[in-house]
Amino acid sequence: MNDKISSSSSSSSSSKKEIGITVKKNDDFSEWFSQIVEKSGLADYISAKGFIVLKPYGFAIWESIREYLDKKLKDTGHSNGFLPCLIPESILNKEEDHFKGFNPEVFWVTHSGENKLSEKLALRPTSEALLYSIFPKWISSYRDLPLKINFWNTALRAEIKSTKPFVRNSEFLWQEGHTVHSSKNESEDQVMMILGIYKNLIENVLSIPTITGFKSNKEKFVGAEYTTTLEGMMPDGKALQLGTSHNLERNFSRPFGIKFLNKENNEEFAWQTSWGTSWRLIGAIIMVHGDDKGLVLPPMIAPIQIVIIPIYKSNNEKAVKESANMLKDSLLELGYRVFVDGRNEYTAGWKYNEWEVKGVPIRVSIGQRDIENKIIEIVRRDNRHKQVIPLEHLGESMEKIFNSVQNDLFSNAQKYLKEKTKRVSNYKDFKKMMDDSEGFAVAGWCGKEECELKIKEETTADIRVIPFDQDVELDKELKNCIYCNELSEKTVVFAKAY
Amino acid sequence: MNDKISSSSSSSSSSKKEIGITVKKNDDFSEWFSQIVEKSGLADYISAKGFIVLKPYGFAIWESIREYLDKKLKDTGHSNGFLPCLIPESILNKEEDHFKGFNPEVFWVTHSGENKLSEKLALRPTSEALLYSIFPKWISSYRDLPLKINFWNTALRAEIKSTKPFVRNSEFLWQEGHTVHSSKNESEDQVMMILGIYKNLIENVLSIPTITGFKSNKEKFVGAEYTTTLEGMMPDGKALQLGTSHNLERNFSRPFGIKFLNKENNEEFAWQTSWGTSWRLIGAIIMVHGDDKGLVLPPMIAPIQIVIIPIYKSNNEKAVKESANMLKDSLLELGYRVFVDGRNEYTAGWKYNEWEVKGVPIRVSIGQRDIENKIIEIVRRDNRHKQVIPLEHLGESMEKIFNSVQNDLFSNAQKYLKEKTKRVSNYKDFKKMMDDSEGFAVAGWCGKEECELKIKEETTADIRVIPFDQDVELDKELKNCIYCNELSEKTVVFAKAY
Repeated sequence: MNDKISSSSSSSSSSKKEIGITVKKNDDFSEWFSQIVEKSGLADYISAKGFIVLKPYGFAIWESIREYLDKKLKDTGHSNGFLPCLIPESILNKEEDHFKGFNPEVFWVTHSGENKLSEKLALRPTSEALLYSIFPKWISSYRDLPLKINFWNTALRAEIKSTKPFVRNSEFLWQEGHTVHSSKNESEDQVMMILGIYKNLIENVLSIPTITGFKSNKEKFVGAEYTTTLEGMMPDGKALQLGTSHNLERNFSRPFGIKFLNKENNEEFAWQTSWGTSWRLIGAIIMVHGDDKGLVLPPMIAPIQIVIIPIYKSNNEKAVKESANMLKDSLLELGYRVFVDGRNEYTAGWKYNEWEVKGVPIRVSIGQRDIENKIIEIVRRDNRHKQVIPLEHLGESMEKIFNSVQNDLFSNAQKYLKEKTKRVSNYKDFKKMMDDSEGFAVAGWCGKEECELKIKEETTADIRVIPFDQDVELDKELKNCIYCNELSEKTVVFAKAY
Repeated sequence: MNDKISSSSSSSSSSKKEIGITVKKNDDFSEWFSQIVEKSGLADYISAKGFIVLKPYGFAIWESIREYLDKKLKDTGHSNGFLPCLIPESILNKEEDHFKGFNPEVFWVTHSGENKLSEKLALRPTSEALLYSIFPKWISSYRDLPLKINFWNTALRAEIKSTKPFVRNSEFLWQEGHTVHSSKNESEDQVMMILGIYKNLIENVLSIPTITGFKSNKEKFVGAEYTTTLEGMMPDGKALQLGTSHNLERNFSRPFGIKFLNKENNEEFAWQTSWGTSWRLIGAIIMVHGDDKGLVLPPMIAPIQIVIIPIYKSNNEKAVKESANMLKDSLLELGYRVFVDGRNEYTAGWKYNEWEVKGVPIRVSIGQRDIENKIIEIVRRDNRHKQVIPLEHLGESMEKIFNSVQNDLFSNAQKYLKEKTKRVSNYKDFKKMMDDSEGFAVAGWCGKEECELKIKEETTADIRVIPFDQDVELDKELKNCIYCNELSEKTVVFAKAY
């Protein structure tokens, strides 16, 4: 563990004397969120609207997520590349719907120094257009396929609505993956494989349950044939889209001329996918797991997994700190990210509070008597359960606790998701549910955009996802469209959304 | 090793049937460089001037460099963060000299969608101004210091001069580090520590010798008190600046109000440093080590360190490929990045050429008879020496060869640097040397910017570096300024530069 991550960010908040979270999560969710972001040392603001800076503690969470996902992507045959952040207008313009979809939120570069540019340059809202303008140079035969490339970069979309750190920003960290295939089947498999990788990351690593399925045509990615999505539920009953995987079919390969010679030596347009997930995942972690005391981080991505607080007086400081460091070394050897908080200028109680705000999953305290008894005291951040474990069973005890935390975070979130997901079959109940922000409404839908738009207009709720999992038996109750009452085509999930 | 890095980029170049480099390095250095970049699959261009895309093979080299440097920075107490790429004009403007220095090359965002922004936003040419506008919120006491933060991002500087991939681009990958200290001494140590880390990376990992020292006032970073630099020599005798580490003293902390309470409870302005290195390092690797056959990568950063070419006929294909894969597994276990090129559609000779263009340090071929004799044939990319090693000594032999390649690349480059660095004591010789692009001229300099400017005007050469290593005995010969003949203050290195 790099000591500076913790000490620099903690001491800076410390010096401002703003240690605890002063509002309750249920009382003022929005203010609570802002305080967590600031007081746990995740991020800060700049003077331009909608832009944030990640402090070391916040960026270290992104590094954990990136490291995990990057490995999964490399293991499945993807490589990373680099793309410029500026896109000439004429290129962005090539796929018309795509361009129209992003145009209102594009930042435009018009000058360099004092000179007006001959062509406006767009700050990347996403890289399909730029990358696909180059693909024809890279691809000529089926031997060049599949081409699977990923980019860890940022996207820029001018946010005119209210902004929220990690959830809605004018520039955000993300990864965008792009693949090109020689058959439709292969592209369909790719879309689902990526969705599976995302689901595994979000559910098993971040402990956040999701509902997976398709977007409606209205809600799909501009230019895609279809979009698959993972939707999470936030504590205010709203949905947060946590990742999307798009099948572009040949909607881009045609305007961009991405062709290949197939095995029969005939020229074909290629099949494409694109997909992404972003630092919204951090926003979701904050909202789903955080509590009145502060952030609660899932162990697998916590920058500091275990904080050790030595409890000492002046007469035994040296010995206790030595033991704390020995314990640290043992835990490092077991592969944990550990930090010893040996600062003299703060009391143990003060430190407990600070590390609670920062959401470190496990706190260990060790004092003179513990050393003599060869034990340590462990407190879980998530449920604040305290337990004493003998040092000789350090490895197995710690592993058990870690798994429990990881699992408990998930099951609590899943319980909440289930409670707040309701099947509704009449519009009055539906409307009340949306008015009261009561969560996800599972309802029948005839498939017409008209009904979707009317519902949006009257309730501000969207179709968040058309679940893959259409439960035929249960769905019989929902056989009519919640809005027009005609025969429903699919059972879908409506919710208000971030 | 991720198979996709090699196969996708290799097959795409293959399908264009442009396999070898068609000009000699000494005949047309500039065309040779372009061909290497394209044919080895490092990078590609977009339609906007000065911007490049990194293909997987090129980005993988950057990933190797980043991984190495990131670890060194974390080990020395630095953490990573994230900064937006847009900087409000008023912030950039706060340190006047700094702003003036970058203004001509700043890209300006003036609109989002159809709307004119109330304040122009600059695309980050470097992040001092933006970051330092936030530091006052993070720092209040000496306990918050030192603050050591690093960013892996890009910088954008509109290049109006001729551009060159990896060397002069309008957007380039780099890292920029920023530190804040409570004393001048500590900031000075930091500047030198970073320069040492860079020197170790460039000389011991990339095998490129450097001359280290100070920049002249004219050449230092805008806003810095002083700049230290590492200069490498390219095969055309020009200098390439490979990294810089700046002491900003209090030149930024004053205008940005970065203050701290010291131990005596008095308020002081803080001491700062900033430093960076970029993908220019890849440009230097290409130029310094490459040869007429293509790229030559130093083993420590090669994405593929060893390529195995199975030599088979249809009757023994399966057995030979199996052995090749077993060899791969052994080498993976030893920690090498290995790729087996088992493609049937290409001959062994064709594959040899392709991997030579891509600069893979070690090529291993294995055929039926080798398997029977328990040997493999190894060819070094750098000097094309061939040797046969018994499989039972695989580990030690490979390690020896790797170290030799790494060292030989360095000593050859160092020999060249020494040959092309000449001490000159009269301006006529100096001028001829610069006219003929003969390399680095070590000469006396009176310290006046006037002479520096005149020399620049008359020869286009700059003072690249005022070496730390001032050899008092030798420098007696150079006791007069090469231009005005007055007593020289320092012995300096002049050269034309990229």
